Amino acid sequence: MSGNRIPEIRQDSVFKKWVIISPARAKRPSDFKSKKNSGSQNPSSNSSMDSCPFCINHEHECPPEIFRVPHGTSQWRIRVIQNLYPALQQPQNPNPSSQDLDPLVEKNHGSPNYIPQYHSSGSHSLGIPENPIPEVHLSRDLIRSIPGLGFHDVVIESPEHSVALWDLPPHAIGDVLLAYRERMKQLLCNEFIRYIQVFKNHGASAGASMSHSHSQIMALPIIPPSVSARLDSMKEHFERTGKCLLCEIHTKDLLIDESAHFFAIAPFAASFPFEIWIVPSYHSSHFEELDSEKAVDLGGLLKLMLQKLYYQLENPPFNYMIHTSPSGVPSGLPYSHWFLQIVPQLSVAAGFEIGSGCYINPVFPEDAVKVLREVKLP
Amino acid sequence: MSGNRIPEIRQDSVFKKWVIISPARAKRPSDFKSKKNSGSQNPSSNSSMDSCPFCINHEHECPPEIFRVPHGTSQWRIRVIQNLYPALQQPQNPNPSSQDLDPLVEKNHGSPNYIPQYHSSGSHSLGIPENPIPEVHLSRDLIRSIPGLGFHDVVIESPEHSVALWDLPPHAIGDVLLAYRERMKQLLCNEFIRYIQVFKNHGASAGASMSHSHSQIMALPIIPPSVSARLDSMKEHFERTGKCLLCEIHTKDLLIDESAHFFAIAPFAASFPFEIWIVPSYHSSHFEELDSEKAVDLGGLLKLMLQKLYYQLENPPFNYMIHTSPSGVPSGLPYSHWFLQIVPQLSVAAGFEIGSGCYINPVFPEDAVKVLREVKLP
Ligand SMILES: Nc1ncnc2c1ncn2[C@@H]1O[C@H](COP(=O)(O)OP(=O)(O)O[C@H]2O[C@H](CO)[C@@H](O)[C@H](O)[C@H]2O)[C@@H](O)[C@H]1O
Ligand SMILES: Nc1ncnc2c1ncn2[C@@H]1O[C@H](COP(=O)(O)OP(=O)(O)O[C@H]2O[C@H](CO)[C@@H](O)[C@H](O)[C@H]2O)[C@@H](O)[C@H]1O
Repeated sequence: MSGNRIPEIRQDSVFKKWVIISPARAKRPSDFKSKKNSGSQNPSSNSSMDSCPFCINHEHECPPEIFRVPHGTSQWRIRVIQNLYPALQQPQNPNPSSQDLDPLVEKNHGSPNYIPQYHSSGSHSLGIPENPIPEVHLSRDLIRSIPGLGFHDVVIESPEHSVALWDLPPHAIGDVLLAYRERMKQLLCNEFIRYIQVFKNHGASAGASMSHSHSQIMALPIIPPSVSARLDSMKEHFERTGKCLLCEIHTKDLLIDESAHFFAIAPFAASFPFEIWIVPSYHSSHFEELDSEKAVDLGGLLKLMLQKLYYQLENPPFNYMIHTSPSGVPSGLPYSHWFLQIVPQLSVAAGFEIGSGCYINPVFPEDAVKVLREVKLP
Repeated sequence: MSGNRIPEIRQDSVFKKWVIISPARAKRPSDFKSKKNSGSQNPSSNSSMDSCPFCINHEHECPPEIFRVPHGTSQWRIRVIQNLYPALQQPQNPNPSSQDLDPLVEKNHGSPNYIPQYHSSGSHSLGIPENPIPEVHLSRDLIRSIPGLGFHDVVIESPEHSVALWDLPPHAIGDVLLAYRERMKQLLCNEFIRYIQVFKNHGASAGASMSHSHSQIMALPIIPPSVSARLDSMKEHFERTGKCLLCEIHTKDLLIDESAHFFAIAPFAASFPFEIWIVPSYHSSHFEELDSEKAVDLGGLLKLMLQKLYYQLENPPFNYMIHTSPSGVPSGLPYSHWFLQIVPQLSVAAGFEIGSGCYINPVFPEDAVKVLREVKLP
């Protein structure tokens, strides 16, 4: 681990976007032969299986375990561990003062307390020099930055290398979801944590550097921009109509399938071809409210959607993300409603998307729905 | 060209993001052997060179030319042509009524005028069926959509397949920039155009489907979300400080290099490792204000930055984007200042970035500056 220079969270003054600058991340290995290759390869074809640190009996190649499922057995089914190359650094003090972390406080990078230390960043492959280089002098007004403190965990979803999440039975997928919940509840005990992002990367083109089935949990000291935008628009909708936007979004025409407590739709303005949202049919603001029965039910619907994508698009690279409420928001808030978004990665966000923030999707969601409904599972 | 169903621009009601849904895009070919491969390969290694429609003497394989440079010669150096697989459809009527296009008007998809026609979308590889499928019924309130009318052009930067933009002399790069300007001025004569996004993709991992050096110009009937966010924050800064944010951003510590009229910096909160902004040192709100002398000067600095990236990062995939002002904004607006952003594509935006809108950058911009300053060009 880099360790020398702690990560920083900076806000761009022009686009008002936050970025986590974290040299430790540059060191992480990739077990895909070429990062740009093999987006849709089957994880089981991975040649590095013998040396995968996420496999059973390789636990010693990982940082400390946070917990396993079932608790206290050697035959674990799920492990939640610290990420070996975390984007955020765990605080020494479990509750750093809010002044240290308040993203709205303008920090003075010129003050002696705040001079960044330039040690080896570890980014040798990028040609970053070892020597200290001078600190940045920018007008205070243009600088908004906080220390990159937080938590970054990995959830190993199975002890076996060649098992994909959708190979597991619904109750075992439910257990993965309950592991997210358990870890989120622990992380929320840290007062400085404002938002928890749970996500999964599958396939090299979807960014995965490890092929063994896993997901990640990042606990952040800020509310990220997409989360504020989402809450603002849901609040605005509620104030205008008296209804929760996601309680209303259920529509027969865009429905792919539903279970006892959840429904899966293609969103009307999907940014990605074959994008799917799985939404609780009951109103719920926080993912942590998920109970065991609903977790199994969601596990079943998630399995079905991932299987449909697997067969229709031939094991596409994909990401899923849980969109929930920030830590300060009271449970039961009438306008906030969590959901899980699945995005197959069939094209690259390029100059147009990066420049404008608009995506180009070649597939009408109505057409994707029609296809996904009819996928035959073997 | 698909033609059957016209593209639509839809706004997601949850994230307030716009998306262009354009089935014609699914049909475009890729001249990279595998789209996920070869991100940083040299364009000259491309096997499809013999059959490249952007090469000289292949003009007949392209849609109508808009203009060439020099005008009226057979020995062209630059061609501006229509994109064969446009994301937006050119309007029949050069000035569609503003009511048809106003993105703030809620459209009723249930009305007979607005029933989408489901013909072949052309996305056979994705398994989209040929048969008409039913229209979407969503509550009016959840739907925001306009027809996907606009313009989508390609700028072929050289007649020769194996020439990269940075191989050209500064005046020839200046001519490419002036070709953008000329086409932008033409496009701005269409009253319904609100914003013009100029961008370049290089390398398959940066999204390029064609390896012959080119860039693209998209003229949109909306102001995209990143543009509104940027203008809002620049306006807010101006109102608070009386100064233009980009006039103030010039800093010795983040400066890579400068020319007579432009400077190149690493932005303080860069989202991408080795991200570079090239900014006019004079205040200018609109890219179209660029004159011939400044175009050559910018051509030189752009060449230098692209060469530095080429040698330091070994021909990385990259995108560049011009960030300018929307069409309605008066020239000389004191808070808006155009610039060109270059982003090497060394990692993949994955679950965390898609979910949160935050990027993780492993390289401190101060470190990238130090490296980029010292790159030796042969
Ligand atoms: N022995 C070990 N013990 C514990 N942890 C280990 C480990 N070896 C590796 N790891 C960690 O395991 C994680 C595997 O994660 P993924 O494969 O989902 O993608 P990664 O986070 O690398 O990057 C993708 O996702 C991030 C976030 O979206 C993007 O920034 C990035 O560009 C994209 O490639 C890595 O974060 C890595 O640090
Ligand atoms: N004979 C011909 N005549 C005229 N034009 C021709 C042509 N043959 C191909 N074209 C067009 O040439 C363009 C080449 O563009 P690029 O290589 O920069 O990327 P592309 O637009 O394919 O997609 C990348 O950029 C877009 C926008 O950022 C992303 O949506 C996408 O995911 C990413 O891969 C394509 O738009 C294609 O339609």
